[in-house]
Amino acid sequence: MPLTPEASGVFPIAPTPFNPDGSVDWTSADRLFEFYHGIGSDGVTVLGIMGEAPKLEPEESIGLVKRAVAKMGAKPIIVGVSAPGFAAMRSLARQVMDLGAGGVMIAPPTNLRTDDQITGYYAQAVEAIGTDIPFVIQDYPLTLSVVMTPAVIRKIIQDNPSCVMLKHEDWPGLEKISTLRKFEADGSLRRVAILTGNGGLFLDFEMERGADGANTGYAFPELLIDVVKASKAGRRDEAHDIFDAHLPLLRYEQQQGVGLAVRKYVMMKRGILSHDAQRKPGPGLTAAAKAEVDYLLGRLAKHDPRAKI
Amino acid sequence: MPLTPEASGVFPIAPTPFNPDGSVDWTSADRLFEFYHGIGSDGVTVLGIMGEAPKLEPEESIGLVKRAVAKMGAKPIIVGVSAPGFAAMRSLARQVMDLGAGGVMIAPPTNLRTDDQITGYYAQAVEAIGTDIPFVIQDYPLTLSVVMTPAVIRKIIQDNPSCVMLKHEDWPGLEKISTLRKFEADGSLRRVAILTGNGGLFLDFEMERGADGANTGYAFPELLIDVVKASKAGRRDEAHDIFDAHLPLLRYEQQQGVGLAVRKYVMMKRGILSHDAQRKPGPGLTAAAKAEVDYLLGRLAKHDPRAKI
Amino acid sequence: MPLTPEASGVFPIAPTPFNPDGSVDWTSADRLFEFYHGIGSDGVTVLGIMGEAPKLEPEESIGLVKRAVAKMGAKPIIVGVSAPGFAAMRSLARQVMDLGAGGVMIAPPTNLRTDDQITGYYAQAVEAIGTDIPFVIQDYPLTLSVVMTPAVIRKIIQDNPSCVMLKHEDWPGLEKISTLRKFEADGSLRRVAILTGNGGLFLDFEMERGADGANTGYAFPELLIDVVKASKAGRRDEAHDIFDAHLPLLRYEQQQGVGLAVRKYVMMKRGILSHDAQRKPGPGLTAAAKAEVDYLLGRLAKHDPRAKI
Amino acid sequence: MPLTPEASGVFPIAPTPFNPDGSVDWTSADRLFEFYHGIGSDGVTVLGIMGEAPKLEPEESIGLVKRAVAKMGAKPIIVGVSAPGFAAMRSLARQVMDLGAGGVMIAPPTNLRTDDQITGYYAQAVEAIGTDIPFVIQDYPLTLSVVMTPAVIRKIIQDNPSCVMLKHEDWPGLEKISTLRKFEADGSLRRVAILTGNGGLFLDFEMERGADGANTGYAFPELLIDVVKASKAGRRDEAHDIFDAHLPLLRYEQQQGVGLAVRKYVMMKRGILSHDAQRKPGPGLTAAAKAEVDYLLGRLAKHDPRAKI
Repeated sequence: MPLTPEASGVFPIAPTPFNPDGSVDWTSADRLFEFYHGIGSDGVTVLGIMGEAPKLEPEESIGLVKRAVAKMGAKPIIVGVSAPGFAAMRSLARQVMDLGAGGVMIAPPTNLRTDDQITGYYAQAVEAIGTDIPFVIQDYPLTLSVVMTPAVIRKIIQDNPSCVMLKHEDWPGLEKISTLRKFEADGSLRRVAILTGNGGLFLDFEMERGADGANTGYAFPELLIDVVKASKAGRRDEAHDIFDAHLPLLRYEQQQGVGLAVRKYVMMKRGILSHDAQRKPGPGLTAAAKAEVDYLLGRLAKHDPRAKI
Repeated sequence: MPLTPEASGVFPIAPTPFNPDGSVDWTSADRLFEFYHGIGSDGVTVLGIMGEAPKLEPEESIGLVKRAVAKMGAKPIIVGVSAPGFAAMRSLARQVMDLGAGGVMIAPPTNLRTDDQITGYYAQAVEAIGTDIPFVIQDYPLTLSVVMTPAVIRKIIQDNPSCVMLKHEDWPGLEKISTLRKFEADGSLRRVAILTGNGGLFLDFEMERGADGANTGYAFPELLIDVVKASKAGRRDEAHDIFDAHLPLLRYEQQQGVGLAVRKYVMMKRGILSHDAQRKPGPGLTAAAKAEVDYLLGRLAKHDPRAKI
Repeated sequence: MPLTPEASGVFPIAPTPFNPDGSVDWTSADRLFEFYHGIGSDGVTVLGIMGEAPKLEPEESIGLVKRAVAKMGAKPIIVGVSAPGFAAMRSLARQVMDLGAGGVMIAPPTNLRTDDQITGYYAQAVEAIGTDIPFVIQDYPLTLSVVMTPAVIRKIIQDNPSCVMLKHEDWPGLEKISTLRKFEADGSLRRVAILTGNGGLFLDFEMERGADGANTGYAFPELLIDVVKASKAGRRDEAHDIFDAHLPLLRYEQQQGVGLAVRKYVMMKRGILSHDAQRKPGPGLTAAAKAEVDYLLGRLAKHDPRAKI
Repeated sequence: MPLTPEASGVFPIAPTPFNPDGSVDWTSADRLFEFYHGIGSDGVTVLGIMGEAPKLEPEESIGLVKRAVAKMGAKPIIVGVSAPGFAAMRSLARQVMDLGAGGVMIAPPTNLRTDDQITGYYAQAVEAIGTDIPFVIQDYPLTLSVVMTPAVIRKIIQDNPSCVMLKHEDWPGLEKISTLRKFEADGSLRRVAILTGNGGLFLDFEMERGADGANTGYAFPELLIDVVKASKAGRRDEAHDIFDAHLPLLRYEQQQGVGLAVRKYVMMKRGILSHDAQRKPGPGLTAAAKAEVDYLLGRLAKHDPRAKI
């Protein structure tokens, strides 16, 4: 199913499951996508930064996309295709669309500085992959060190009709959502989906500022769905209550470099993944860190029975 | 009172109070330091990154130090003296020590890269200010983009007897605290105080990993004191309970660039500051942001009566 | 004499002379400015990046400006006032203008990224120092990592009538000069002086692209004057001949970090400075490097008798 | 032929020839490698930063390596295999060695900061590609913003027996060569080849400091060979004479971003390449720039008849 500007809800960022020997754990991959589908995700993103994409062989990347397409029903699959060159980006983008992906996500290379360099890069990327492939802008300054103003994002969207979504993970970023929605209101920006990242650390307020949902990872993606649904339904206190209950763990998982290990560890404890292995090189959790996560899970279980594991 | 390696507890990072016309609000400054003293702070840090230090005239900087010394009893005052050149650093350091400060804090310049450049810089800084002034290493990669390994921190401490404290605000940083404490246990590192920063976002676990306290800002520094005391007393659940109650607001305040505006806004509502003004250039809070903070305060007040304002 | 948009020719960047004990060598400072004046410089820049400005005490900085004003006749003095905060920038700018400086130079802080951040910064800086002080934009991405497009430079110039000069040291930067001059030709940009930096490494072609001269340092500033004069007079081959003769040494001096040591060493050998000392911390030249410079001087002397030293 | 620590002389960095329509120009590729072989190159490097490697499809990359192997006689071929992940690095490295390459070159990813991160990265890279593949360290801080001290380079070499060469392009870097050679003299470092980069801008003195040759690009690689040979033979003045004659053009070609366009333009004029096209996105030369290069060629031809084109 193609990704459209009407996309909404929660698109988890899928980790790539590995066996302890470093091979891809395809059984867990199947189970993972079934899980995402079963809890009511509105789509999924594979081969993102947290998907350990650069460590994968080409055929493994393709295999993951195939499994996601097979297991996610008619839900749109977003595939990260960021690459140091447009040849690889184009090749991967066209392949995964042929396999049934719904769209691709493109992050800017870290050396871009000026507004013109950023808008120029997206123009070139669209020329490379073709104007028929729906794409997502990834706006992630903390990790990519590329800073896009609202006006730059607007220009990319207006210049490129195939842009259908913004993955918003600027930090802080609440005002940016408000500004972009104001651009829409004043007619200077067409509507695209805004889904937020950053592990959901500000999801409670991002929804209230006008986000359409979340495109991020967390060991309990059900929490993201709960918050998005409650917020959309106007049940503000309920959205914050469930969010706040998860915040201590969510914050713990939102540590650069360590976060993926935490996420895999919890998803393994939940039975979703068979192992918490990362492909090398990847930092594991120390015994102290695991004990901290266990403690947080115990505290969380008092508020959310899904954490009783 | 001089700062020593035995320092412990909470040293709030003091914001600099301004009047709406941009002049320093000395009345609020007096009240602020009285407040810090009254709640049982173990010291205070002035002219830090969050103190808007680069916007101050020299005589204003000196004035703030004088007030802190006058109002904080015998508690040690730490003064940020980071500067683009050693002449200014030396000059400020010697002046504030003469006025009764307890020590100075030095952040590395953002262009340092190699281990040798970092240890060399601290050697030169100590040579510049003199070996008789107790100093604090500020380890803050997120903002300064200088990455110090535990071994580099150890070398700075071992090479410079006047180093008495590490302001730890690496992120993620829990393992770094554990590693430094292991260095102490194996005898390769002498004991210095480790106080943590980052707005307290990981204070609950930092204490459990071996931190001696917090050297950071938050609109409710009493919370930092509560967590540090409960944690030191071994009342783990109590420490986490009060911490978790504050986490939604604390997280909101921990937004780069916006955080200081949030902090001043809340401290104004609490009656500690007369105004929430920053000296130009400084971003204010939008009406939407203020409403979000008010909402968070309302929710917090259910758990902590000090937030009823 | 105030700096105006009609400025032209060569404004050497003055090194700050030191005695071996680290004190300012005021005798050499006087001789240096007399030398610059004597060879026909059109002005001079003090307290620039290569002037070791951050190592100076405030009274030393002021002293240097006074000497430059006293010794340079009616030629305009440009003073570097870049600072981490606007308070210090304003204070220094107003002081030096009162002392007779012709204008100030402002480099952007290294953390600026977007076009709006850069133009916003210059607007704030002008508000801070006052709209009556002529100022120079320093465009130096290699060292400052701030990238300004021609359109950004145009906006700064158009928005701020007190902007009178661009110190152009982008690299590569020839097309930028051509683009800015095209902006002038099409009426979208008012005329300001463009003087180039980067140690003169592309001065030969920068003049041909439309630069008005050089605002940079080299141990033989006479060479810069020769090239600018010959180029302006349309004697292209002559300009390149003298330039090429100096290029091996000029290139050697254009090494980041080492360059200033080379420059001072040669100026000491020429009798302009009494010592080649830098204030600490500053790298000296190894014996091998000095021998290389001596060799280059020997080779240069065959083409330019001024190098016979 | 495998690359060994005894490698010496000139290994040009090969540009990738393209047709105006963006396809690889295989005829020019064959001619290019025949040219490198014919002038007496000691090897060649393909898929380097200046080889537009990220723009190539995998089969094109392989095709280039095959041609280099076929045309360069028994001379060792170095292949750039830097990649965002070890899977792609390993895959390319093993493929090209099977095809007859002599070794691979690995640049560090731009986010590395501490000494341990750098040495750790090379350990992981060697584990990924296998300890049987000779590899070259690329030390290029200006572009990669990773700074390696001599001690870090020593550790990589000592820890990894398959390291056979340092591509030295730190800038300034003369003292680094001297330091590494001193390490060898004092027995703390085993001998590896040091070949220098940076377009040869300091090749004259790099040879005198102990470099074994050049691993870089220039439109007249014969000049690099001349300088290396004369310098090795102790004919110092001769080495500098020919070097200085080329320096104005060599400097012009050494402009980041523009340099490759200059190089291809001159190599096209020399008849080595059929076109000066870069694959998109790639900046072309303006008419003004081409005229400047032509002028420099005209001046060079008075000293070096090979420039009469």
